[in-house]
Order: sequence, then structure tokens, then C-alpha cells
Amino acid sequence: MSSASSGTYDTTEFYEGLVRHGLIVPVRVQGAFGRGAVFEDVLERFNALITQISRDDGAELYTFPPVIDRTIIERTDYLDSFPHLAGTVFSFMGKDREAKQLSDRVHAGEPWGDLQGITDVCLNPAACYPVYPVIRGTLPERGRLITMTNWVYRHEPSPEPTRMQSFRVREFVRAGHPDAVVAWRDQWLERGLGLLKELGLPARSDVASDPFFGRKGRMLAEGQRAQKLKFEVLVPVISEENPTAVCSFNYHHDHFGRVFEIHTPANEAAHTACLGFGLERCVMALFRHHGFVPADWPAAVRARLWP
Amino acid sequence: MSSASSGTYDTTEFYEGLVRHGLIVPVRVQGAFGRGAVFEDVLERFNALITQISRDDGAELYTFPPVIDRTIIERTDYLDSFPHLAGTVFSFMGKDREAKQLSDRVHAGEPWGDLQGITDVCLNPAACYPVYPVIRGTLPERGRLITMTNWVYRHEPSPEPTRMQSFRVREFVRAGHPDAVVAWRDQWLERGLGLLKELGLPARSDVASDPFFGRKGRMLAEGQRAQKLKFEVLVPVISEENPTAVCSFNYHHDHFGRVFEIHTPANEAAHTACLGFGLERCVMALFRHHGFVPADWPAAVRARLWP
Repeated sequence: MSSASSGTYDTTEFYEGLVRHGLIVPVRVQGAFGRGAVFEDVLERFNALITQISRDDGAELYTFPPVIDRTIIERTDYLDSFPHLAGTVFSFMGKDREAKQLSDRVHAGEPWGDLQGITDVCLNPAACYPVYPVIRGTLPERGRLITMTNWVYRHEPSPEPTRMQSFRVREFVRAGHPDAVVAWRDQWLERGLGLLKELGLPARSDVASDPFFGRKGRMLAEGQRAQKLKFEVLVPVISEENPTAVCSFNYHHDHFGRVFEIHTPANEAAHTACLGFGLERCVMALFRHHGFVPADWPAAVRARLWP
Repeated sequence: MSSASSGTYDTTEFYEGLVRHGLIVPVRVQGAFGRGAVFEDVLERFNALITQISRDDGAELYTFPPVIDRTIIERTDYLDSFPHLAGTVFSFMGKDREAKQLSDRVHAGEPWGDLQGITDVCLNPAACYPVYPVIRGTLPERGRLITMTNWVYRHEPSPEPTRMQSFRVREFVRAGHPDAVVAWRDQWLERGLGLLKELGLPARSDVASDPFFGRKGRMLAEGQRAQKLKFEVLVPVISEENPTAVCSFNYHHDHFGRVFEIHTPANEAAHTACLGFGLERCVMALFRHHGFVPADWPAAVRARLWP
């Protein structure tokens, strides 16, 4: 697949290749496509590799639903930083009369959103968010390490296949003393790069910033870069010039420790960091660099994924 | 665990047992709890058993995200039948000025839902919904069979642990000629019962009806029962008197075939049926009947799940 591993796909070409090979299944809205059996097999194998390389770390495993307590995004300033990406869940809370009105509107093709009210849940915006309230209280001396594979949501419909509204992140969260948290983050930065390179991907890491909203957001992004709070592992998927972040590392200092009352045994606010592999993006990077047919991938890559 | 397999738990007792054994992780909102590692292991093993007993059926495998094209629930009359259960995704679509307003409201603890607008996606209300638009067109003579494990959403917060806002369903969808569809449904009714009984669960099947909304809903439910369009496999989890539906079978006649233009080769609207195992409910039924510690489960049950 030399043609696939050099040059730059356009978005449509790569998307259509994924569709043509049954790897993804188009739907009417952008960024919410289905995944086919082969895509899922690669995703599960890749996720299993992450489990394998971290098996001696003693991470606690949790799974959280795609909807979470809405107060989490209220308490963490998510709606200050990323109001445009958040998805909140609304439902109908009326009686027979209002239900008739809703039905009439839907059948007439008229807007019906104003007949819905906000619920107590929102879509999970980042795989780690539901875990912080769960680890409230005093940590053991060595801190805690938790891993999850959760569906996350971002309201950014796009024809670009790596920019999804809904996708899975394999996440690790470390909470404890600052030194331990930073050392753990740095270890994983190497591990993540190593894993992707072993799979034949031209990965590199870089300091990064989040897509903060609006004018104030530009300052937040500059501060985040200056303090090196965010790193990403990048692989070209759609373009060589603008590689795709397939893995993201965030150091939160004591922000979540303070908000969710997570303490060290010395009663100081715990520091936290998280890292997440964007599983669909990692899988797409493999299809981009090795071709659309896993049976034709390099033997070393196949041996690592299907040992 | 004879004490666990006779009599009736109250909701709180069973919920607290699940929590105490780390099987589920409480969160602030009802029906959105996290799942622990042992719970997930049982769920994955149970799902793998379903794959195993259906391996010769030739089902096509898809995975869909927890959010789907909103027009699907508009076109299928879901909002007529279950307006109270649907969840729609709202997002912020303003600029800097409105973002400031949103932020101020959130920090003041004031309502902010009116600053959100409806998006093109809703939460998936039933695992099979996203598949019907995908199989639009003319089916092969033998029809099609598709399987998925998807997260679904129902807005019915409850302290009762089997009544979740967000849960996974292992679903099968059969589309084709009416005779083939009904025969397939009947075969699975036996298979589902057989699988659960092999796992030591006192399962039985019954004609059922959906929780249609309001006054009109009672008539819809009566019609559904009279026509035997819905069956459930039931296992006592919370109470002996009101067993929990762990598996549900729906025959749609040509409803989805007409709405989504799915045809037989003779150009008639295809008939469809679906069946879904509520995976969390099946797992909870196992914990209810065999106890909270899988290592202590009957050898035959363990051998089936962990062969």
C-alpha cells in the first residue's frame, strides 16, 4: 500500500475508502456513522494491546455509560471552556395534551425542541469525567490508577472521518502526589509512542492545547501550552501537514482534586492527570498507513495485533 | 446462596449488594451508575455466549454509537408511542456574548437549558433503530440478519437497579419474508429461554406489551398483546411476582419496511423482527440467583461462562 502511506488523502477519498471496504457504515448525520465487523475487530485488538502493555500497573477497571451526571460539567468549568462541544440530554416531561402537541408537530415536520426539557444527565464529554466524583475522599499513599473505555460526545459534526460526534476513548486516570502523577504521565508518553511505532505508524508527540471556545479561549490555549499541561501523540491520517491527535495527555494540577474533594493522606488536594487513546482514530491511522484490508497488513503489525 | 435464590429482595437491598461487592459504582443520578471489572467480565462472557450459540447463523455485525440520526425517531412514530422515554441531544450554538451568559448562569446555579438548541442527533432508544436506514433497498431472497451490541437510552430515572437510563442491548434484526421472520423469532424464543435456563436462571416467556404513553397507549398495548407482536423472557430479579424482562422480541410486520423502504425481491415491503438481550439485566439476574461472587457460582454455570 505505498500509495496509501505517502502523500495526502483528501477527506472524501479516505472516508469513501472506509465505506467501500465495509469498515464504516454511512448514516444521515455527520460523525455518527456505524462501524463494521472488521473495524471493530481491529479496535478491540488495539484496545487489548493497551491492556497488555499496562497489565502490571494494577489499574482498577470501570465502565461508565455514555450519559453522566450533568452537574459534573457544571462543576468542572467545562461549559466555560467548551460550551460549543457539550451535549445535554433533553426529554419530554408533559402529559397527554402536550404529547398530542408533540406528535402533531413531529408529523407536520415542525420544530418540536421547545417541548423538551433539560434532564439531569449530559453526554460524557471526556472519558475520565465520571470517575472524579467516584474517587472523592482520601487516596491511599500511592494514589489511585483507574482505566476505562467509554463513549464520549462532542458536538462537532464534520465530513472528516476522524472528527466524530461520538467515539470511544481508552482512558487512564492517575490521582495522587504531583511527582508521581507527572512521572506516570511521562512514562505513558513514551509507551504510547512506542506502541504506535511498533504498529508501523509514524507517530510523534508534541505539546498541545485544547480547542477552547471564543476570544478568551485563545488565552487559555496559550497558557496551557506555556505550562505544558497538554501533550498529544500525532499520526498523519488525513494530511501530513496537520496530523491527527490519536492520544492525548492532560495534567490537571489540583483542579479536579479541589472540585471533587480528592485528597492525599496529608489532606492536600490531589493532583490528577489522564491520558486517552482515541480508539477509532488509532484504527483509522492503521487503515490509512497499512491499507483497508488487514489481511494485507505487514506481518509484524498483524502479529502484534493478532498474536 | 440459597438465601439469594428464594424470596424477594427489596430494591435497596439488591442495589446495595451490587455496590458493596464493587459490581456497580454509585453516581449522583439514578440509572447511570458505573460498572466494575467483575460485572463487565460477566457481561462480556454472557455476550460471547450469545455469539457462540448464533455463530452458524451468518449474522452481519455492526456497532453504532449511542447517538443516532434524530429523524429516525421522528419517522418511526417513536415520539407518539414513547415521548416520555426519548432523549434528544441539545447543544450551545451561540457566540461569545451568549457563551458569557451561559457561563454566568452555570456559576450562579441558575437554569441554563434555554440557551441550548436541538441538534441533529438523539440518544438511541432501541439497539435496532440505527440499522433500518442502513438496509434500505432490495433485500436478497433469503433476507438479511444483523447483530449489534449498542448502548440505548430511556429517560426513566429509578432507584431500581434493573431500570437504567443507559444500558447495553445485544440485538439481532431479521428482515425478509413474513414466514421467515416469524420462524426466526420463534427459534430465538426457544434459544433465549434455553440459554438462560442452562445458566441456572428460572426463565419463562410470555406475551408482553411496550410501555406506551398515556391514554391512547393503553389501547396500543392491548392491540399489541392481542396480535402477539411482543414476547419477553422473564426472570425474577427484584421480585418473584413481577419478574424482570431480560430479553425482548418484537415483530414489526411491515412497519419499518415501509418507513425505511426495505423491500423483498418481489418489491413488497419487507417484514422485520428484532430481539434484544438486556445485557446488564441478564448479568444482574445471574448475581441475584447465584450470589454476588462469581467464584462461588455453581460449577456448571461457571463452565458455561468461562469455558
